[in-house]
Amino acid sequence: MKIRIVVPLAVDVFNSLVEEEADRLRAPGTEIDVVNVERGPASIEGSYDEALAAPWVVEAVQRAEQDGCDGVFVDCFGDPGVAAAREVVSIPVVGGFVPAALTATAIAGRWSVVTVLSNVVPLIRDLARKHGLEGNVASVRHIDTPVLELQDHDLMRSRLLGRIRLAVRDDGAEAVVLGCTGMMGLADDLAATMADEGVPVPVVDPTAAAIAMLESLHKMGVSHSRLCYHQPTEKLRII
Amino acid sequence: MKIRIVVPLAVDVFNSLVEEEADRLRAPGTEIDVVNVERGPASIEGSYDEALAAPWVVEAVQRAEQDGCDGVFVDCFGDPGVAAAREVVSIPVVGGFVPAALTATAIAGRWSVVTVLSNVVPLIRDLARKHGLEGNVASVRHIDTPVLELQDHDLMRSRLLGRIRLAVRDDGAEAVVLGCTGMMGLADDLAATMADEGVPVPVVDPTAAAIAMLESLHKMGVSHSRLCYHQPTEKLRII
Amino acid sequence: MKIRIVVPLAVDVFNSLVEEEADRLRAPGTEIDVVNVERGPASIEGSYDEALAAPWVVEAVQRAEQDGCDGVFVDCFGDPGVAAAREVVSIPVVGGFVPAALTATAIAGRWSVVTVLSNVVPLIRDLARKHGLEGNVASVRHIDTPVLELQDHDLMRSRLLGRIRLAVRDDGAEAVVLGCTGMMGLADDLAATMADEGVPVPVVDPTAAAIAMLESLHKMGVSHSRLCYHQPTEKLRII
Amino acid sequence: MKIRIVVPLAVDVFNSLVEEEADRLRAPGTEIDVVNVERGPASIEGSYDEALAAPWVVEAVQRAEQDGCDGVFVDCFGDPGVAAAREVVSIPVVGGFVPAALTATAIAGRWSVVTVLSNVVPLIRDLARKHGLEGNVASVRHIDTPVLELQDHDLMRSRLLGRIRLAVRDDGAEAVVLGCTGMMGLADDLAATMADEGVPVPVVDPTAAAIAMLESLHKMGVSHSRLCYHQPTEKLRII
Amino acid sequence: MKIRIVVPLAVDVFNSLVEEEADRLRAPGTEIDVVNVERGPASIEGSYDEALAAPWVVEAVQRAEQDGCDGVFVDCFGDPGVAAAREVVSIPVVGGFVPAALTATAIAGRWSVVTVLSNVVPLIRDLARKHGLEGNVASVRHIDTPVLELQDHDLMRSRLLGRIRLAVRDDGAEAVVLGCTGMMGLADDLAATMADEGVPVPVVDPTAAAIAMLESLHKMGVSHSRLCYHQPTEKLRII
Amino acid sequence: MKIRIVVPLAVDVFNSLVEEEADRLRAPGTEIDVVNVERGPASIEGSYDEALAAPWVVEAVQRAEQDGCDGVFVDCFGDPGVAAAREVVSIPVVGGFVPAALTATAIAGRWSVVTVLSNVVPLIRDLARKHGLEGNVASVRHIDTPVLELQDHDLMRSRLLGRIRLAVRDDGAEAVVLGCTGMMGLADDLAATMADEGVPVPVVDPTAAAIAMLESLHKMGVSHSRLCYHQPTEKLRII
Repeated sequence: MKIRIVVPLAVDVFNSLVEEEADRLRAPGTEIDVVNVERGPASIEGSYDEALAAPWVVEAVQRAEQDGCDGVFVDCFGDPGVAAAREVVSIPVVGGFVPAALTATAIAGRWSVVTVLSNVVPLIRDLARKHGLEGNVASVRHIDTPVLELQDHDLMRSRLLGRIRLAVRDDGAEAVVLGCTGMMGLADDLAATMADEGVPVPVVDPTAAAIAMLESLHKMGVSHSRLCYHQPTEKLRII
Repeated sequence: MKIRIVVPLAVDVFNSLVEEEADRLRAPGTEIDVVNVERGPASIEGSYDEALAAPWVVEAVQRAEQDGCDGVFVDCFGDPGVAAAREVVSIPVVGGFVPAALTATAIAGRWSVVTVLSNVVPLIRDLARKHGLEGNVASVRHIDTPVLELQDHDLMRSRLLGRIRLAVRDDGAEAVVLGCTGMMGLADDLAATMADEGVPVPVVDPTAAAIAMLESLHKMGVSHSRLCYHQPTEKLRII
Repeated sequence: MKIRIVVPLAVDVFNSLVEEEADRLRAPGTEIDVVNVERGPASIEGSYDEALAAPWVVEAVQRAEQDGCDGVFVDCFGDPGVAAAREVVSIPVVGGFVPAALTATAIAGRWSVVTVLSNVVPLIRDLARKHGLEGNVASVRHIDTPVLELQDHDLMRSRLLGRIRLAVRDDGAEAVVLGCTGMMGLADDLAATMADEGVPVPVVDPTAAAIAMLESLHKMGVSHSRLCYHQPTEKLRII
Repeated sequence: MKIRIVVPLAVDVFNSLVEEEADRLRAPGTEIDVVNVERGPASIEGSYDEALAAPWVVEAVQRAEQDGCDGVFVDCFGDPGVAAAREVVSIPVVGGFVPAALTATAIAGRWSVVTVLSNVVPLIRDLARKHGLEGNVASVRHIDTPVLELQDHDLMRSRLLGRIRLAVRDDGAEAVVLGCTGMMGLADDLAATMADEGVPVPVVDPTAAAIAMLESLHKMGVSHSRLCYHQPTEKLRII
Repeated sequence: MKIRIVVPLAVDVFNSLVEEEADRLRAPGTEIDVVNVERGPASIEGSYDEALAAPWVVEAVQRAEQDGCDGVFVDCFGDPGVAAAREVVSIPVVGGFVPAALTATAIAGRWSVVTVLSNVVPLIRDLARKHGLEGNVASVRHIDTPVLELQDHDLMRSRLLGRIRLAVRDDGAEAVVLGCTGMMGLADDLAATMADEGVPVPVVDPTAAAIAMLESLHKMGVSHSRLCYHQPTEKLRII
Repeated sequence: MKIRIVVPLAVDVFNSLVEEEADRLRAPGTEIDVVNVERGPASIEGSYDEALAAPWVVEAVQRAEQDGCDGVFVDCFGDPGVAAAREVVSIPVVGGFVPAALTATAIAGRWSVVTVLSNVVPLIRDLARKHGLEGNVASVRHIDTPVLELQDHDLMRSRLLGRIRLAVRDDGAEAVVLGCTGMMGLADDLAATMADEGVPVPVVDPTAAAIAMLESLHKMGVSHSRLCYHQPTEKLRII
């Protein structure tokens, strides 16, 4: 199958990392390419950033369908533009939140999200509410680090571990979801470190979960419901 | 106070009606003007339309604040761009859903929404979930009529009455919210007709509710929480 | 419009303060007068106090309607007698809880209440449940101070600030509701102090919210649903 | 043990029936007497009636404790005055709703209430919400019959059967709660009739459930929590 | 009436204690005997243990019905095999969770469970969810003590008090449920100690609650709904 | 990877069909074998059947891990023994419900289950509650057909279509989950038929969803949380 990863940012600083990671995560028969949106923010850290990115996400998803892709991963934990894009294409489209949240629900009763900034905590809570998963969320914590500073892996790693420990100990988390797709390639290491500390908490990486879900939906031959994401009505639209 | 109504459509066919209605609804000291967004769809009937309108809603709301407005009503029941706009301004911003839904909650235990098309039913359910009001929603029904065909008032009125009767009788609605801001000027008449039939069900008009809420927030001196709608971080954004 | 404030207490020690505050909060065209109930407790701090006040609240609300009032504010955060009063009159009747809780819901995703005593914490939780708002409540905290000791403004103010800080930091509150109508005239100052501390949390005053809601309902021409608050059946009642 | 049944009505037309029924339902060692409240309505069919009865319920419950009773049943499905009465005494106090609702929860996953009039449907829904049981309620239906017309047993019986059939077939009820304590002595017969029709649905009688719960709490040596129903603060109360 | 207590363990070390306690708790006319299951674990501390015990619980409950018993208490807080057993008999069957949880709901708005090990915390949360009671649970805490070490009463007592204090102070518990039927005979003492400390929190013993509920259901003449716990279909079963 | 399908039945009548279907659904690198449990019922249609199967499911899952399998599908929609089995192995174990329910949640806002008999409707509702997904369930309907009569494909197909139509039209389902793993190989055809009727409702097959989820979890390197499914304590167990 052919998956396209749409990075909903106007900059391509993350692309090579995303390509590498996607290459590591894809199943044998899966081809993945990575594109950016034409316009939008340099990172997504709030509803304003999402609003700026969404129209261009939709456009990129439409192009992906025209290019013969079998699924699209909108590479952001906040699922920006995903509902809109689902209305205009038939191929499966997922963001980072839903695949990661459902994976966590499959393996644990209550799970926490650890994200980048306080700015996005309400957005993540709203995603959980929107998808009817609020009762499974133990907490949403953040490492107080903007997306564009996640490059310092050691700092990110140590801050994530700090929040994961609190999520398990104080909030009753039984699994942890990394709440930003910029936190790539760390989940295994974090889980192993926690296990070494005697706290065997699974850590879910949203990129891995998203690619796996697209591969699953493809195999199952199902896509998003057009009774939920209706085909747009015909009319004037000035874009 | 000065309220600006941002009609999130690229066409101004509704503007004169909105102006008339706003003039009828405003409190003595309130000035209201009406603007359109620069780009976007001709009507909003799904997530795709909302995504297209949202960036321009934000821009129009920012301009409203710069122009000294004290509040903004984004004139659509789906609250498109409202969360994003709240992040970039300090003055109160409301769409149609929240004021109408909260008014209904104030006067009845369970209420129904009657909207235009099946396309927007999932969006309205998601708004109810997002604002924690799902338990108060008796049902979301629709009249199977696109926004741009609401001009036929007699047809709209008779279809709305049909759905309101069902909402009360079969769904247990104790109040009804008109689920499109294009259903202007009908609430009183619908409520009176129902009362004449022996079913005294209040009908909430989202435009009236929105203007009243902006006037209330202004009097109370409160606006949306910046702990929920955080100021956007500084960074490159290509719009 | 004419609003009557029914203070559900058998003593009038708060009346002049309430009058002053009401005068400050009312819209230009609004007239407000303040009355007490004939019998009842000196303050309301539990279900027993509410039960004692409720019959006399109903009576005072009936008299308000006979006197041509357009709305009644039952001046207590616990909404004592409000449901009963709504059954016997057609004009809008609100207590302190619903208007304040809905205002907080309009401006923030999750909010906390800070009230007077542990005694009323379960009552406030029950009000949130009754109105389907439980999912929006971050916490209900109290300042361990009886209503009749709220006169010491400095003490009340410093205790409220202590609880507001905890509500934001530990409970995730994005807005705060003052959980007693005796905490008059403090909301702006508390919000300003918090903002100065770098925590821009809106503070909702229930008296201001109630008066604004009555003015809004009056403008909108809607009142409580008679399908929810049914007209009492005719029969013997010994009062 | 000594149970007192407080009929929260100003008339004693039901008392002899209640006494007979109580005598049939009590455990061997239980003594039961029946009293009326001093003032109040002739029947309870709404919040107004509850407000009128509540202060006198509290008084009657206090007298019961002074008279050495070990528990009080406030004989009405709406639990009028129960929360208030619990604040002023230490002995267990129950109304009709909580014992019947918890019995239904013990024996079935989802249950319906069949009550007297549409007027009380919102009150019963609110009781379910207040006690956190809303998710277990399949529906609240009514037989459109005032309390004071329940004397016509054949009519009541046939109307109840009609609603019970609908509750099972259309609402998914697995058990039924009779939603008025005036529907005495019918539960067994209704359940047997339904079973004869091939629908083995248990029917819970609130009077039986309430007496059984008081006997249970007495045996267990527990009463309502004073952390939930706090002792009233000392102060002036004009009754 | 005749109650059989089925201890779902393959060992009888608890039986004499259970017999003593049952004798203390039963109503005058109630006979109680105690049996073990034929196979199963030595204690129940997880889903695996429950799965091993369940088939033998069902068998023991069937035998109880054949022996003319009027009710069965499956003596474990996790209700192992209870749903299965209810499908094959008509007499009431209860475990420890439901009777204790419903008793707590009857006397308090929010309650906590204090159980033995972290292993069973998710199971108890799931029971609360299954019975629609999750909104009433303040917390589930544990004393980090395996069932088979509960013999050291002083240690158990002091650990329970520690957790009860935290449940009230930090979690808002208004009542406490002992979350293991092995914590016999302690509830009164724990409640008295807490009351002496100025924290009058009721403590519910699951064994006492279960016996009282069986006696109640017997008096009321109701049992579990066969619309919820359906009679098993006829077919081959290799046991 | 190596997946073992554990058919939790004591009969192997379904095995060849399951093998065929598994072969059709597996990813290129996946090996799948199918085994039965040693003892248990001929089909699973209630809690009693689940209790009989569960110990043998656990045993079969343990053997799968010893045999080097990378994941186990317990081939029944009711997830019998899954929680217990997860406690004793480290490899991922899933039943039919969770993978299908999460797939439906990924593609639609509200979905219905269509299952075999009324007997299992309460079990499916309880699974939805247990996994925090109750708010996403539009309805649980059944075709009134025992598992062992599913062989008549035409009858099953026509009954399923009847229920799917009702689920969409009357219950608001946006996707449908086939609520029995015996309904193999029908999902695509049912979805196509509905689409031909103008109702494009996705239909989720639990077997396909389960295999895809095991492949996903394997690729992601995560398994169930040992903080939720704790390792059993050491002690005597008589099996």
